[in-house]
Amino acid sequence: MIQSRFVPPSGAFTRSVPVRFSHCDPAGIAYFPHSFDMFNGLIEDWSTQELGHDYAELIMGNKYGFPFVHLECDFKVPSRMGDVIDLTLLVERIGRSSLGIAIVCHRNGIERLRARMTTAMMSLELRKAVPLPQALRAAVEAYCGRTAQ
Amino acid sequence: MIQSRFVPPSGAFTRSVPVRFSHCDPAGIAYFPHSFDMFNGLIEDWSTQELGHDYAELIMGNKYGFPFVHLECDFKVPSRMGDVIDLTLLVERIGRSSLGIAIVCHRNGIERLRARMTTAMMSLELRKAVPLPQALRAAVEAYCGRTAQ
Amino acid sequence: MIQSRFVPPSGAFTRSVPVRFSHCDPAGIAYFPHSFDMFNGLIEDWSTQELGHDYAELIMGNKYGFPFVHLECDFKVPSRMGDVIDLTLLVERIGRSSLGIAIVCHRNGIERLRARMTTAMMSLELRKAVPLPQALRAAVEAYCGRTAQ
Amino acid sequence: MIQSRFVPPSGAFTRSVPVRFSHCDPAGIAYFPHSFDMFNGLIEDWSTQELGHDYAELIMGNKYGFPFVHLECDFKVPSRMGDVIDLTLLVERIGRSSLGIAIVCHRNGIERLRARMTTAMMSLELRKAVPLPQALRAAVEAYCGRTAQ
Repeated sequence: MIQSRFVPPSGAFTRSVPVRFSHCDPAGIAYFPHSFDMFNGLIEDWSTQELGHDYAELIMGNKYGFPFVHLECDFKVPSRMGDVIDLTLLVERIGRSSLGIAIVCHRNGIERLRARMTTAMMSLELRKAVPLPQALRAAVEAYCGRTAQ
Repeated sequence: MIQSRFVPPSGAFTRSVPVRFSHCDPAGIAYFPHSFDMFNGLIEDWSTQELGHDYAELIMGNKYGFPFVHLECDFKVPSRMGDVIDLTLLVERIGRSSLGIAIVCHRNGIERLRARMTTAMMSLELRKAVPLPQALRAAVEAYCGRTAQ
Repeated sequence: MIQSRFVPPSGAFTRSVPVRFSHCDPAGIAYFPHSFDMFNGLIEDWSTQELGHDYAELIMGNKYGFPFVHLECDFKVPSRMGDVIDLTLLVERIGRSSLGIAIVCHRNGIERLRARMTTAMMSLELRKAVPLPQALRAAVEAYCGRTAQ
Repeated sequence: MIQSRFVPPSGAFTRSVPVRFSHCDPAGIAYFPHSFDMFNGLIEDWSTQELGHDYAELIMGNKYGFPFVHLECDFKVPSRMGDVIDLTLLVERIGRSSLGIAIVCHRNGIERLRARMTTAMMSLELRKAVPLPQALRAAVEAYCGRTAQ
């Protein structure tokens, strides 16, 4: 198998996550839906810590939702209990109400998994897509600028 | 939004699943990683009930694993607590050690979500891909024959 | 180890649940938090199917919540991937706003796990406990009558 | 409601955990099985970081398991998305092969939840309880000494 190397662009938002007992299946390998749960956690932390928009407040206070409309994922190297993995978030596209996000799971310069996800901002009350608020859009654009390769 | 209609081919393996309290997020909508967990459950049941190859025995007895190598998913209509959804499994491709599977989530003839997943059969002891055993391959081919559209 | 035998009282609400790949840990045994998730699912089905009070409607429509205030559990026999387990719900106590529920996990007359849980009905809007509505209380009392041993 | 105050003993192992979107139910409150999953994660980290016995190695290398045999939990104050909670582990009893552990979830000096759990060390190969290895026992005893109140 040819290994993919990955080095996050400088300024990219990266968090390390332990692969726990509870993430692993009877084969001793991280069960894949847990990866997607980790990605959602990364997006939460990115919004709150990097963009300065508290994720819980966006959902519970402002009644916004961020459902995914499309997702694709390549699984390259499995993770096992006791591993610590690094997750890096990159923005690929900013639409009117949608964001194209890539999340790369890597360790020691080797890419283990790469997901590309499109999320659309919606109003939970109107139950329809709404444009990204200007301040949030500006924060995402600034992040793109900081991490451009 | 244009709705996609879906009618499973005759003979296709379909199971109904309730969308439970525990599947739903603070927005009242099924949290997407649970969908992937449901897909794995569908593959288990399909293997055991439709193909006649007990999934638990394949894993624990024969030490095979079925990790996903690629996955993509379009989310079209969200599901809410109390919904019952139908999941249909279709085989799109049979490789040497891999299977291309589509899972369609639908209700009342409307497609809610469609995933396309590639899984590769591996030996948990050798930690590498192995060819599909002949009996399992034959069972999958027979299923394809029964569900050809 | 002395095995506990269990035969559900006639009329008791019992559902069978498969122990799936995703429920099991690297030791091949059902990971215990999944048991609690199964219990919540059993309570949902009991409410909807046995008591005639749609659980999703109680939560989303009537804005009731059913948080647990106390829970205890004895784990006697582990479950493994591929097992099918039976879950039986018994009511032990009906309070003003609380219910004492026992859930017994068993198979082939052997008790595997027994949980005793106290849940209190609360208004999600008032954020405080509220009395059980009369119709729901009556349905629970009728269930107790049917399953008295 | 009378609030319980809690201050961890000096030297006690405490970790902070964010209450995420994915932990919360349609009522906006942390769904209780996730609490138990957090407890298992705390035990993992305590073993590895505080006792110096790598949890993944104990399971995958030494083929030990740590199933719970008894668990009880009082839920006092619910947690909501966006909260950060502190989890403190205390050892209440050291048996031949079992440990009695208390986990207290607290924030700002207020106790939110307290669980008491008995785990028994078992050999995954022999499928029976085994005595705690001397080095692990000594590390647990030293922890008890450091945190005695």
